[in-house]
Amino acid sequence: MSVYSIAVDLGGTNLRIAAVDSDGKLLEKLTTGTEVQRGRDFVIREMCDAIQSLMVKHRGSGDLAGIGIGVPGFTDMDTGMVMRSPNLPDWENFPVREEIERKLGTKVILENDANSAAMGEKWLGAGRHTDHMAMYTLGTGVGGGIVMNGRLWHGMNGMAAELGHCNVEAEGHPCGCGSRGCLEQYASATAIVRMAHEAIDSGNAPDLADAARGDVEFSSRGLYQLAIQGHVSAQRIYQRVGRALAIGIGGMVNALNLPMYVIGGGVASAWDAFAPTMFQELKVRSFIYSVTAPDHVEQGKKHTVVTIALMGSDAGLYGAARLPMLGPAAQTEPMRSPAQL
Amino acid sequence: MSVYSIAVDLGGTNLRIAAVDSDGKLLEKLTTGTEVQRGRDFVIREMCDAIQSLMVKHRGSGDLAGIGIGVPGFTDMDTGMVMRSPNLPDWENFPVREEIERKLGTKVILENDANSAAMGEKWLGAGRHTDHMAMYTLGTGVGGGIVMNGRLWHGMNGMAAELGHCNVEAEGHPCGCGSRGCLEQYASATAIVRMAHEAIDSGNAPDLADAARGDVEFSSRGLYQLAIQGHVSAQRIYQRVGRALAIGIGGMVNALNLPMYVIGGGVASAWDAFAPTMFQELKVRSFIYSVTAPDHVEQGKKHTVVTIALMGSDAGLYGAARLPMLGPAAQTEPMRSPAQL
Repeated sequence: MSVYSIAVDLGGTNLRIAAVDSDGKLLEKLTTGTEVQRGRDFVIREMCDAIQSLMVKHRGSGDLAGIGIGVPGFTDMDTGMVMRSPNLPDWENFPVREEIERKLGTKVILENDANSAAMGEKWLGAGRHTDHMAMYTLGTGVGGGIVMNGRLWHGMNGMAAELGHCNVEAEGHPCGCGSRGCLEQYASATAIVRMAHEAIDSGNAPDLADAARGDVEFSSRGLYQLAIQGHVSAQRIYQRVGRALAIGIGGMVNALNLPMYVIGGGVASAWDAFAPTMFQELKVRSFIYSVTAPDHVEQGKKHTVVTIALMGSDAGLYGAARLPMLGPAAQTEPMRSPAQL
Repeated sequence: MSVYSIAVDLGGTNLRIAAVDSDGKLLEKLTTGTEVQRGRDFVIREMCDAIQSLMVKHRGSGDLAGIGIGVPGFTDMDTGMVMRSPNLPDWENFPVREEIERKLGTKVILENDANSAAMGEKWLGAGRHTDHMAMYTLGTGVGGGIVMNGRLWHGMNGMAAELGHCNVEAEGHPCGCGSRGCLEQYASATAIVRMAHEAIDSGNAPDLADAARGDVEFSSRGLYQLAIQGHVSAQRIYQRVGRALAIGIGGMVNALNLPMYVIGGGVASAWDAFAPTMFQELKVRSFIYSVTAPDHVEQGKKHTVVTIALMGSDAGLYGAARLPMLGPAAQTEPMRSPAQL
C-alpha cells in the first residue's frame, strides 16, 4: 500500500491544499482565497474542513503519512507555533500545530514557506539528484532554505537559512530586520522597484523616468521587460541583482561548499537579466570553486551548480507534502544553547 | 581497554606530534621544527618515525584508533591529498594519506588545520557542551571550521568552512583568493598591521605614526597594547576588526542558526579590543537573534553564544586526535555534484 500526504500552502492571498502521493504524483488540489481578515480560527476551520474532505476522498490511495503546512513566517519546531508572520498577525504564539493535530487526529508538520519550497525543489525539482542544496526564493522579500543530507537544516531556533538577510553591502540600504545591506534589499521584487525609483531620482535614468511616466507596468516584471528590450538603466538594476546574489551565494559556497544553489521565486524568471553578472561575479566571489551553470559543466568534475528553480509556485506545496513522508532525521534531539546546560 | 590516537599538527614552523587518549588526556607530546626546506619525503619520514616511536611506547595505553593529521592547506577527503598549501608547496597532489598509511599500516585522517582546531574546541574547549558550532581562527589568515551534529562539515570538495573568505565589504581590500573585501582582509593579524599602515599613510593617525617610529613592536599584538593603553587610532582598527567579524558571524547566524560561534587564533587574545564593537554590531547584523557573550545569557533562553576559544594553540592537535575516534558519520557517501549524475 502506498503512502500519501496532505499539503497546505498558506499564502497571503491563496490557501492551497493538495493530496500528493510518495511518488510526487498530485492526487488532487484545492485552491481558495485565504480570508485572513476573518481571523485565525476561521482560516484554521476552513483549512481543516478541506483537509478532512481530502482525507476522506483519498482514504483508498494509501496510508496518510501526515499533514505538512507551509506558512509565511518563522515557525518554532519545538512548539509548533508561528513566531512571527507579517501576513498572519493573529497566529503568533498560538499553538497551531497542536490545534490542527487535535482537530484532525493526525501528525502535522509546520514549516516556513521558503523551507518548504527548498524541500519541494529538492524532492522533485532542480535538486532532485542531490541531497545537499540551498535555495533562494526571490519574491516580495528573499527567503531561503538549506537542505543537507536530504533534510532541512533548521538550526537552534528553527530559524536557519534566512539567506535573504546575509549582508551584501556593509553600509547598504536599511532592512526591515534592523540591519542594513541585506541581500533582500538588492534581490527582491521590492528592491528592484526601489532601485528603479532611486535611479530615476538620481537623474541618471531618463529612460526609466520616461517608462515610469508612460504606461509600462512599473514592477520587477515590467523592469525586466525594459531590460531585455535594451534599456540600459533597467539592465543596470538587474546587474546589481546579479552582483548581490553572487556575494550572498558566494558566501554560502565558501561556508558550506554545497553542490547546488537554486534560485526561485517570481524574480527568478528574470534570470536572463541577472544571471550573466551573477556568474561573472561568482567566479571572483567564491573561493577557488568552479561555479558554473548546469549547461557548462565538464563531465566528472565536482562543479558547484547555480541554477533556476523548476517547480514554480508549486515548490512549497510539494515540499510541505514531502515533510511528513521523511522519517526522523539523524539529529532528532532539539538543539540546545550551551547556555541552557 | 581504552582507546588512544596519535595526532600530528604540521605547522609552517613546528611539527607537533602527540598521543591522546579518548578522555582527552595527553599521554605524550613531541615538538620538533618542520624542516620544510628539506622536502616532503624528509618531513614525512621524520613524522612517521616520531609516530612510530609513540605507537611503540603507548602500545599498552589501549587500542590505537588511528592517526589524525592537521595540515595548513586544503585537503581532499576523497583522495587524501593536500590540494593547495602555500606552506607545503611540494605536498600538492601527492597521496599523503596513502603514503603514511602504507608506511605505518594504520588508518590516517588528513584534515585542514582550521577544521582540526574547530574539532579540538568542540571536543574539549569552548564547544564541549554543544554538537553544533562554527569556529573562526584569526591568525596570519582567517580560517574556519563548522561542526554540525558533532561532525565537521566538509561539503562537496572538502572545502567548506572557508569562513575567512566570506564577504564583509563588497568592494573592499583585494584578497589573495581573488575576491575583494573578504573577512580575512579585516580580521587577520596581517590585516590589522595593514590597516595600521593605511591609517598612518592617510595622515589621520599621528599617534600610530609616532609608535611606528618608536620602539613599539608594530604587530597585531603591539597594536593591541596601544589600543588598551588608550591610543584612539589603534582602538579604531580593532573596532573595524569587530565590525568585520560581526558581519561575517552575523551571516552565519542567519544562515545556520548554530548555538555557538567560537573565535580563536592569535588575534583572539585581543578580545577586549574588538569584542564590544562585535557584539554591538551583531545585535544589528544578525536577524532577530539574541546574540550575547556567555556571561550575559539568561537561563532557559536559546541564546546564540559568541565566545573566545579555550584551547589556544593546542586546539588543532587535540582535534586531529579526536578525528580517528569518531565512528562513520551519518553522511558517509562522498557528496557528488549533480553534474556528475
